[in-house]
Amino acid sequence: MARGLFVVFEGVDACGKSTQARRVAAARGARFVFEPGDTELGAHLRTVLLDAHVPMSAPTEALLMLSDRSHHVATVIEPTLAAGRSVVADRFSHSTLAYQGYGRGADLSLLRAATELAIGDCRPDLTVLLDVPLEVANDRRARDHRDRFESADLAFHERVRAGYLEMAAADPTTWAVVDATGETTEVDAAVDRLLDRLVWP
Amino acid sequence: MARGLFVVFEGVDACGKSTQARRVAAARGARFVFEPGDTELGAHLRTVLLDAHVPMSAPTEALLMLSDRSHHVATVIEPTLAAGRSVVADRFSHSTLAYQGYGRGADLSLLRAATELAIGDCRPDLTVLLDVPLEVANDRRARDHRDRFESADLAFHERVRAGYLEMAAADPTTWAVVDATGETTEVDAAVDRLLDRLVWP
Repeated sequence: MARGLFVVFEGVDACGKSTQARRVAAARGARFVFEPGDTELGAHLRTVLLDAHVPMSAPTEALLMLSDRSHHVATVIEPTLAAGRSVVADRFSHSTLAYQGYGRGADLSLLRAATELAIGDCRPDLTVLLDVPLEVANDRRARDHRDRFESADLAFHERVRAGYLEMAAADPTTWAVVDATGETTEVDAAVDRLLDRLVWP
Repeated sequence: MARGLFVVFEGVDACGKSTQARRVAAARGARFVFEPGDTELGAHLRTVLLDAHVPMSAPTEALLMLSDRSHHVATVIEPTLAAGRSVVADRFSHSTLAYQGYGRGADLSLLRAATELAIGDCRPDLTVLLDVPLEVANDRRARDHRDRFESADLAFHERVRAGYLEMAAADPTTWAVVDATGETTEVDAAVDRLLDRLVWP
């Protein structure tokens, strides 16, 4: 049986990742997954990460995210791919490098090693970076959440965006950058053109 | 102000680590700490690790332990040492290498990198390995818990013990091995002779 395709959408908050990942998964008969928190263990960890409001350092946060990811790979993503079904993810490993590494300053080479420990050989066939200028993300966030990034948040998200662009530029064979500034229909079309180049099982 | 000393007790279950660590901390006016679960975040993670009974892979378990350790270092161990008080720990980084690495087979070099991400420069001044043959640990466990290791556990704990001995042999300047087979008073005396060589603040 052919192995499923593993496609990941990455980008800053409010870039449209979740919408695209759900749309593509539905259109291609793939399994939609998200992080953190898509397993029983992950739901526990998501509570700790997002709800418990324990202030934690970048390495602590990264290691917790990676533990969740490791479990997600072992119990959901790998078994689905091995069974011949594709997986479309809203965030994966590069989120940790972008947010805790580029954004919060944790050591990138140690983060990469910890990531390898977490995911083993389970690497995306394609990672789609939905790139938007921070002003656009900020406006969308204000529209959806009725609040804007604070100025410290803006500087942080600029570092995250720059990190994503650097990672994408360094590995053009498994990354594609889509300008996600425009109308949804335009972004949908750009994403679909990319995905049509892959051989779906 | 002189920085505190950081002393760690390691070894297989029922080797006597916890007893020695508590005794030494009390005798030297040091702070006794344990892992996992010695912080608010750690208590949440301990619930996930030990109580939730979610089966997890060695890398998942290691990353969760390391997240706990990272938080423990940042919020308890480093501030205590920096304030000039010594810390005596019941388990630290080498437990993860011994149990999830040597015991369960997770990649040691990746585990070491993830450990460095978790603890930074916070390395023990001395790690005391309380070494006991598995038969002795097994008898103690049977006495204390009214159960013995199952045979799979025995093979696992043999790998853990061998891993500890290998790590201690590779770094004799920061490790000391104490034969913990004999009477408590003999072990106490051997430990105290080692600790008397350190300059306590």
